[in-house]
Amino acid sequence: MLIRRADEMEGTKVAMDGAKDVTMRLLMGRADGAPNFAVRCFTVDPGGHSPRHSHNYEHEAFILEGQARVEHDGVFHDVRAGDALLVEPNKIHQFVNSGDVPMSFLCIVPLKFDCGEGKYEAVPGS
Amino acid sequence: MLIRRADEMEGTKVAMDGAKDVTMRLLMGRADGAPNFAVRCFTVDPGGHSPRHSHNYEHEAFILEGQARVEHDGVFHDVRAGDALLVEPNKIHQFVNSGDVPMSFLCIVPLKFDCGEGKYEAVPGS
Repeated sequence: MLIRRADEMEGTKVAMDGAKDVTMRLLMGRADGAPNFAVRCFTVDPGGHSPRHSHNYEHEAFILEGQARVEHDGVFHDVRAGDALLVEPNKIHQFVNSGDVPMSFLCIVPLKFDCGEGKYEAVPGS
Repeated sequence: MLIRRADEMEGTKVAMDGAKDVTMRLLMGRADGAPNFAVRCFTVDPGGHSPRHSHNYEHEAFILEGQARVEHDGVFHDVRAGDALLVEPNKIHQFVNSGDVPMSFLCIVPLKFDCGEGKYEAVPGS
């Protein structure tokens, strides 16, 4: 059984356009033999944010610490540790740290997404 | 965007054979429009445990509070808040609260599993 802790893993700075001060730790994904979905832990420093974007797969997220203002297709939600969120496919979304301490959240994604014509591609970061 | 908090949800006592003092809260699943996987929050009271069983789909779990002794096919692991676990398909597993306070964990499952001959059934609790 694979056991991982975010606080014992080296993080990877998220280099995507529009990301600011975000670190990712892949707790479990395809390389670990996860069959269907990947669990990532993101930490957003104060003043930082994830990219504002959309894609045709969902996020199921869980706020572990801190607080965030989350956009979901033009609607803004204030969330905090203990909140679970469903970001639906194809909705524009962004996580902005709205506090003065790091904001960490689990972000779960499927391993693959439909890229048209019945073809499937790997979800980035899975 | 769906937002749910376990501490604001009514729990359901897990009635499966072999479960003792376990409460489930379905944070998001098929009824919420989750496309591929469900996030459940389980709380195991001190002295309690999940059923010892196996099935042909995985669990990806994250310990939120407390501590547990987890069996995975005859091997026992002590885990605590912050640990992420991959319980592989078809492995016998059981979560036993090994502390004196409630132990809570997220348990993520796919929405469906292969029941043979290419047929798919709904994962219980998804």
